[in-house]
Amino acid sequence: MPQRKLDVVLDSVKRLMRMGATANLVNLLQKQYPADLAQLFSELPDKERQTAFTLLAERNSRLAMEALSELGPEAGAALLRERSADEIVKLTQELPSDDAAALIDYLPEELSATVLELLQKRPAGGDVGDLLEYAEQTAGRIMNPKVFALAEDMTASEAITALQGSRDVEVVFYLYVIDARRHLVGVVSLRRLLLVSPETPLKRIMTTDLISVRAEMDQEEVARLVASYNLLAIPVVDEENKLVGVITVDDVIDVIKDEATEDIYRLAGVSSDERVFTPMRESLRKRFPWLLVNLGTAFIAAAVVGLFQHTISAWVALAVFMPIVPGMGGNAATQTLTVIVRGLALGELTWSNARKALLKEIAVGIGNGLANGIVAGLVAWLFVGQPALGLLLLAAMIVNLFVAGMAGTLIPLGLKALKIDPALASTVFITTFTDVCGFAAFLGLATMVLRMKGHTG
Amino acid sequence: MPQRKLDVVLDSVKRLMRMGATANLVNLLQKQYPADLAQLFSELPDKERQTAFTLLAERNSRLAMEALSELGPEAGAALLRERSADEIVKLTQELPSDDAAALIDYLPEELSATVLELLQKRPAGGDVGDLLEYAEQTAGRIMNPKVFALAEDMTASEAITALQGSRDVEVVFYLYVIDARRHLVGVVSLRRLLLVSPETPLKRIMTTDLISVRAEMDQEEVARLVASYNLLAIPVVDEENKLVGVITVDDVIDVIKDEATEDIYRLAGVSSDERVFTPMRESLRKRFPWLLVNLGTAFIAAAVVGLFQHTISAWVALAVFMPIVPGMGGNAATQTLTVIVRGLALGELTWSNARKALLKEIAVGIGNGLANGIVAGLVAWLFVGQPALGLLLLAAMIVNLFVAGMAGTLIPLGLKALKIDPALASTVFITTFTDVCGFAAFLGLATMVLRMKGHTG
Repeated sequence: MPQRKLDVVLDSVKRLMRMGATANLVNLLQKQYPADLAQLFSELPDKERQTAFTLLAERNSRLAMEALSELGPEAGAALLRERSADEIVKLTQELPSDDAAALIDYLPEELSATVLELLQKRPAGGDVGDLLEYAEQTAGRIMNPKVFALAEDMTASEAITALQGSRDVEVVFYLYVIDARRHLVGVVSLRRLLLVSPETPLKRIMTTDLISVRAEMDQEEVARLVASYNLLAIPVVDEENKLVGVITVDDVIDVIKDEATEDIYRLAGVSSDERVFTPMRESLRKRFPWLLVNLGTAFIAAAVVGLFQHTISAWVALAVFMPIVPGMGGNAATQTLTVIVRGLALGELTWSNARKALLKEIAVGIGNGLANGIVAGLVAWLFVGQPALGLLLLAAMIVNLFVAGMAGTLIPLGLKALKIDPALASTVFITTFTDVCGFAAFLGLATMVLRMKGHTG
Repeated sequence: MPQRKLDVVLDSVKRLMRMGATANLVNLLQKQYPADLAQLFSELPDKERQTAFTLLAERNSRLAMEALSELGPEAGAALLRERSADEIVKLTQELPSDDAAALIDYLPEELSATVLELLQKRPAGGDVGDLLEYAEQTAGRIMNPKVFALAEDMTASEAITALQGSRDVEVVFYLYVIDARRHLVGVVSLRRLLLVSPETPLKRIMTTDLISVRAEMDQEEVARLVASYNLLAIPVVDEENKLVGVITVDDVIDVIKDEATEDIYRLAGVSSDERVFTPMRESLRKRFPWLLVNLGTAFIAAAVVGLFQHTISAWVALAVFMPIVPGMGGNAATQTLTVIVRGLALGELTWSNARKALLKEIAVGIGNGLANGIVAGLVAWLFVGQPALGLLLLAAMIVNLFVAGMAGTLIPLGLKALKIDPALASTVFITTFTDVCGFAAFLGLATMVLRMKGHTG
């Protein structure tokens, strides 16, 4: 809801809580959508959040759990961890199995084991445990095993009756059709069901050319399929093509958002599960290793500069202009890297067209090296009065931006070939490259200039 | 489709094209989904792409146009621009108005004006022009004005009959209910329609508490609503709450992907409409200004170094270690910036909790400054044998990573307050800050050390 409305509701919640007006408070909470409750919860201090959740759960446990699920599995599990395993079992049964599994996975290990054990004994409770058998970030992990499926011999009117009796299933988007051994054989849309005469068997009106995914498929791949075929849901099958679950578009949206966040974060060296309000110690612990790696590469660059100490002693102005070329190389390489990594993520860049991309990035690098080198050279000449320094900047800039274009393309592609996420380690490799090359080109050329002067002078 | 299958189909397409086996080629193309055709088209060289599209459009113009629309408006419009306005009008009418509008918007100006003029004369063709009246990136631009709406006095059975007759409308997700003056008053799900007796008036079964958006709303805000309330579609209304269109979840997925790409790109200084295969000249032209701005800031940093030329002449080892502190500041600031920008985009960071985020980032900055400063200081001491240099690195690192945490939080928040996209210009501001502070802290402290030595020696 809009920030202004949220603030109003939030104020009322706090006021009612202070007054101890529990009944009014629960009434107010009951009127909100799950997503709005999640937003309210996230703005409340820890203790008040727990109170609000507990009060709501007593009155309307389904709504309370939906709100908790919207809050995300980590924050959601934090609200449950003080409860007994029995209570948690009862509460999580209000959720679809995939959402329940995500929450339980974030509970402390011992508690989550007890909860899973208790769930096994319940009807359909075993679903949650089954989901957690699948590897993280696969279709099996995010699917809902309660899928509405009908036998191929049913008629349209029988299907409608079955649909009317299915209160427990998540909103039905498509009716999947299975044979006697639960193999997925077709799909019928709800709308199509309304258009045919009641006696028509599903077999005659179903579409057999349907898109399904295997339970082991990576969730990012699933999201790409749902997005590119504009689907509302996609059926999940096992290795024998038996229907085991369904993934709905709302789960796919979460995957797309999470994967984009992961890419953005990895490019900047931030762990993908960090958020704005991750506790300070944890953020520190998560970001430190990345900075340490960068410190290592900074020392490599420093070692390169160290090779040219004599040159710098002889021509101190070099020290002033020295950071410009590596810095620009880093910026240009980041541009290239970003376009390449995003191109790989969106599926636009493939092995068959990688060569074309490389040639383009090299050309852009040289072009930008020339353009920026001329500007930098002119500034050094006109304002500092050292034309030799200007030519040095020009030459080193062209070399380094060429390297930036090449490394910015080849490094993510190489990581992809090694089956490592291209976003993960690209930045640090690339800035090492452009730093080393930038300093080496600028100071190396400067050393040559000094020698030539020595010869002629 | 999977890369391997795509390659097989692609080879067949190329072979059939070389053989001139037009009929077989069209048959093969006809069997593909629009999204797969788009992928095929994007892998074909320009001329072959045009041929394949033309052949398919002759046989199955709807499928050809759906594929073209999946290709994205820019690449799609490129395939149409050689055709006459009449042909374009005929072809775009195969698409929903929102997709047609996006394509036409990318045609050369004169051609698009003629096309819009011709469209005005067609029944319902005016829709496209109306959509283009809305500002870019608003709900009005991406909505489909053909929305399935029913009068509140209709009965359930009348509604089903109406639904059966509605062939032209995009897949129906929800049935919106309007009053006599087209005000949006409620919504009925397809499933609910099946559950009630045929004579029930819609008025009695509709939900009146429904979420709608105004046509002027920013598309990112629309996407956030659809995602957080798990909707399949959201109705669009005008200032009088009259129903003017509907936005479906597949369009929302495109918005989410585009906005994530935009954020990733902006953080790296890449224009948001650049793709891997944007022509080289255009990429060069788009990336140069950003690099030039960075060059400017690099000269500012160089000017700071210039203030300390005497210090560097007296102690050349400073030049070797000088780039480390600004570099680390840049890395730490990028981490903070990324978490803050993504937090703002996902709605987790708001004005009411900004202070908490700032304090946390400052603490993380000081903590990481201390940790990395100790490592850097020890390396300088143990390997270079200069304890004073080590202490300098430690002190300067703490100062600069404190600055990085503060600037990395305050700059994006400040831009947001000024209603500028926080991702847009943050990086360049922040690296200027961390470069200037990094050099100034390190070289400034070194100057003080030298003076003290001068006093005591």
